[in-house]
Amino acid sequence: MDKKEALEKIAKRLRIHSLKMTAEAGSGHPTTCLSMADLITCLFFDEMRYNPENAEDWANDEFVLSKGHAAPILWAAYAEAGIISEKSLMSLRKITSVLEGHPTPRMKWIKAATGSLGQGLSAGVGMAMAMKLGKSPGRVFVLTGDAECAEGAVWEACNTASYLKLDNICAIIDINRLGQSGPTMHEHDIKAYERKFKAFGWDVIPVNGHDINEILKALKIARKNSGPTVILARTIKGKGVSFVEDKNGWHGKPLKEEDLRRALKELGPMPSINAKKFVHKPEKKKSHQLEKKYNFKKNTYKEKTATRRAYGNALLNLARINEAVVALDGDVKNSTYAEDFFKSFPKRAFQVYIAEQNMAGIGIGMSAKGYLPFIATFSAFLTRAHDQIRMASYSFSNIKFVGSHSGVSIGADGPSQMGLEDLALFRSIPDCAVIYPCDAYSTEACVESLARHRGLSYLRTSRPATNLIYSKDEKFPIGGSKVLRRSKNDAAAVIAAGITVHEALKAYDELKQERILLRIIDAYSVQPLDKVNIIKEVEKAGKKVIVVEDHYKSGGLGDAVAGALSGKAEIVHLAIKDIPRSGQPEELLDKYGINAKHIKNAAKKLLSR
Amino acid sequence: MDKKEALEKIAKRLRIHSLKMTAEAGSGHPTTCLSMADLITCLFFDEMRYNPENAEDWANDEFVLSKGHAAPILWAAYAEAGIISEKSLMSLRKITSVLEGHPTPRMKWIKAATGSLGQGLSAGVGMAMAMKLGKSPGRVFVLTGDAECAEGAVWEACNTASYLKLDNICAIIDINRLGQSGPTMHEHDIKAYERKFKAFGWDVIPVNGHDINEILKALKIARKNSGPTVILARTIKGKGVSFVEDKNGWHGKPLKEEDLRRALKELGPMPSINAKKFVHKPEKKKSHQLEKKYNFKKNTYKEKTATRRAYGNALLNLARINEAVVALDGDVKNSTYAEDFFKSFPKRAFQVYIAEQNMAGIGIGMSAKGYLPFIATFSAFLTRAHDQIRMASYSFSNIKFVGSHSGVSIGADGPSQMGLEDLALFRSIPDCAVIYPCDAYSTEACVESLARHRGLSYLRTSRPATNLIYSKDEKFPIGGSKVLRRSKNDAAAVIAAGITVHEALKAYDELKQERILLRIIDAYSVQPLDKVNIIKEVEKAGKKVIVVEDHYKSGGLGDAVAGALSGKAEIVHLAIKDIPRSGQPEELLDKYGINAKHIKNAAKKLLSR
Repeated sequence: MDKKEALEKIAKRLRIHSLKMTAEAGSGHPTTCLSMADLITCLFFDEMRYNPENAEDWANDEFVLSKGHAAPILWAAYAEAGIISEKSLMSLRKITSVLEGHPTPRMKWIKAATGSLGQGLSAGVGMAMAMKLGKSPGRVFVLTGDAECAEGAVWEACNTASYLKLDNICAIIDINRLGQSGPTMHEHDIKAYERKFKAFGWDVIPVNGHDINEILKALKIARKNSGPTVILARTIKGKGVSFVEDKNGWHGKPLKEEDLRRALKELGPMPSINAKKFVHKPEKKKSHQLEKKYNFKKNTYKEKTATRRAYGNALLNLARINEAVVALDGDVKNSTYAEDFFKSFPKRAFQVYIAEQNMAGIGIGMSAKGYLPFIATFSAFLTRAHDQIRMASYSFSNIKFVGSHSGVSIGADGPSQMGLEDLALFRSIPDCAVIYPCDAYSTEACVESLARHRGLSYLRTSRPATNLIYSKDEKFPIGGSKVLRRSKNDAAAVIAAGITVHEALKAYDELKQERILLRIIDAYSVQPLDKVNIIKEVEKAGKKVIVVEDHYKSGGLGDAVAGALSGKAEIVHLAIKDIPRSGQPEELLDKYGINAKHIKNAAKKLLSR
Repeated sequence: MDKKEALEKIAKRLRIHSLKMTAEAGSGHPTTCLSMADLITCLFFDEMRYNPENAEDWANDEFVLSKGHAAPILWAAYAEAGIISEKSLMSLRKITSVLEGHPTPRMKWIKAATGSLGQGLSAGVGMAMAMKLGKSPGRVFVLTGDAECAEGAVWEACNTASYLKLDNICAIIDINRLGQSGPTMHEHDIKAYERKFKAFGWDVIPVNGHDINEILKALKIARKNSGPTVILARTIKGKGVSFVEDKNGWHGKPLKEEDLRRALKELGPMPSINAKKFVHKPEKKKSHQLEKKYNFKKNTYKEKTATRRAYGNALLNLARINEAVVALDGDVKNSTYAEDFFKSFPKRAFQVYIAEQNMAGIGIGMSAKGYLPFIATFSAFLTRAHDQIRMASYSFSNIKFVGSHSGVSIGADGPSQMGLEDLALFRSIPDCAVIYPCDAYSTEACVESLARHRGLSYLRTSRPATNLIYSKDEKFPIGGSKVLRRSKNDAAAVIAAGITVHEALKAYDELKQERILLRIIDAYSVQPLDKVNIIKEVEKAGKKVIVVEDHYKSGGLGDAVAGALSGKAEIVHLAIKDIPRSGQPEELLDKYGINAKHIKNAAKKLLSR
């Protein structure tokens, strides 16, 4: 039996599995699986090198299924490769199964969760970058749908791959002509794809996506190219089952009993072949160890310093003792202060230009390969990557997002540059650590805490220089808080973070003159909030609370505190309630009601009730 | 004096204004203004047709400054055109001025707020689509930076423009080689841009961006093209001031006193010319009236119906009496049920394929031109457009976002397809109406309320069919709530919305058997929350509350209620606290603790305290 014949048999097995699995589950996308059956067969059973006994082998090739809705055929491929049992395929989409509707790393061979389209290529590029950095002999294959090429993030990823001349990544586009609700923009106009990918600097190889020999030949060429390669595979949605082939209206529909019977009859009996014999292991096993320490040397500060500046200092010193640290920039490194790291560690520093979605997606890929990406931009612009950040949480990524220029305190640039919804964005993600320090020392300590924390996290920094409040050696654990002013006679508590801590301290000083004492709490850990201690402090401070934050009213610190204190205290919430405008920082803090004056007034009003 | 000489004089005036304004403001981006001085001069004082007395003239050409940080030179152009006073330019970035750091529609000639890069082209495409639809003779010009072409959203917009063969849009790329933190990816490689734009179906004209005659000639060609045209202008950042020209490190830096003096000396005296004479009005004034009614005919339902299905029905009937209604789809119209509108109103229905950022950006443009865009996709995928949605709020856009497939109740597709952060996203936007109906009748009534509401709003729909609870004629105003079960002896209140209303009603029935009475509140208006009535109801129901929602724990209904009730009631919050997985809807509601069983248990526990 020649290779072509063998692979055709395996492809047929995958087709049959896909149809049966989705029919059993009662949902899923069988026709989407059928168009890529021959492609995935050539990849998993000829081209790719992977050690089926170890998903973490550093020599493995990696595979990303960007068109995540084709998960069933991916699970089928893993079964044929002997990685999971054939029987387990029938657990598709069941609540007890790791074979979910769209791939997640609950199944351990999955490195990047997919299902939000147009994201797989960025994750693949990130893996390819990590594998270059860590000298893996492996390569990355990303199987992408045609409809998802309408997503701009695909082109952002293409830019980075060609800019970095990544020769260890190969994208395969399954051009099956049909999207969910109808034909794609370019249908089977392969030339249209060819022009685009070429313009973005990729080598392009068009193939018939159902011709095993053509596919194998293309993969062989890709292997030898000196930059990124895309294989444009012309395919038929539903290929192999005549009554669904190339037909609109079959997206996301499993075959019902009678149709399944017809389809299986048409495909013929399950071919007898041991696909495991066609799995190729890498030449040598490889492991990859990086020195990872966290207790970096903290800087000494003598004057007011912006927390963004302290972040840059901390990143640099952390990187000196932690080889896993990498940093990505979207052309604002001179504002976020990642630039010192970029100068000192050019091999671990990546300029992805103004493309935040791709920056986050690359982070997913690099994290999956064991690196610790720090991704910094203006906090406002992290909204651009919200979908990728969401998917990073489903990839269980270990990424540290850093948002500078938070709040109205940035001043005259105006609302488009102000991060005012970033706390809401990151708080909504379960178990994401959301940290918002107010001075240089606490910022450095928070960077250490975040680096140690395994998982998604967000550090919010500010533009203006702020007073030094803490000492160099103080610890800032995730989930903590600090009481900055406390007496036995506190009439109310002020809960603040970042910029507003300084306003709260001013209000404290002024009200003290009037013999009104406030308890001042720095809730630098916005999530998880230090609920137990905050409740305790508030109960001893008159059960009256003012929360003040440089963030929109909903979703930030105020909501976090209200949730924690439900029923236990009266709360006044000072936050940005209108769309702000350009102005000086002090003017804006005043106009939008979050400066010392407003805290004082709120306290007096609360106490007079 | 020939035209070229005159335009060069105006360009010099704009350069001088830009330098002085930013020096006076003490911040801003003068070098970014200087590279585009000749381009904006040719546009505003030769090519464009606009009525300086009426920013709303339907015959006007429109201009979008995608590189929003160049705002000073735009304000200068409006001053030279006689639209604002020259004196007002010195108010740049002041808190009392509408001349903000980045353009916002507080200045009435601005139709789309910019400043988050890579968004202007989508807004421009949206305007061009609206102007075609409303038969405006005007055209749209979008001035875009080179660095921002790294944003994928730019290419999404290019796709739509070429797909729709928009001959009324012209983009001008100011290729000045330098980004914020260093050189751009392609620097002055104009061919690289040429390849990309051509591949995306645009006509391309490269020019020297400082040669007036070349620019004018290119604009003339663009005017006659049968599709979208891009002018690739090779420019020098800081052009006109030798010591900043083409130099890195001058981004976002105003000239200090001594430097300003040197620069002005080099530019020479302010040229004497009346630029107003070079403003070209449209041939005829035009107005544009659309029939806008809202009280559409509601459908009758006889069985369980999904709220997404009812949304599709409502949209169709609304569109029958409201000519302003347009709808955009990202290839999921058969899931959101926008498809009936697409069939009945093909001219007002736009397929933008899978490109949510561009879909939202187009909405900004269409809203700016008086249309009422309904933008529907899976609620999870609206996160993809978070930055555009944020900027839509700064554009004061009147867009109705609709998110289907919200929550774990979608079932087996898994977390990537579940909208679990959408309430947090939309609640964070000031004054955004956030509405989450639970049955078909309330959905239709909510669509009417949202259509009447001027501003951003969000309708959250669900995938599964749900029972009918309300009657056909009931009103659902924004900011309202409904009490579904109430007695004199209620021990606690359950506040729910959408899917969980039905679980709350089940819990009510079951607890009633045990002689425990609950007050059941449908908080369909998540924002603004019906605070006054909810407080009143809760106070009469034992001051004990269970909030239950199919959304992540932070940022949604629970936070909204906690904020509203601060100190007034004890609250238990049932929401999704972990990353969910594939499974059947009922299994998932149970596993993540938001079904009737969990409501019952929570109530009993709360009452036993």
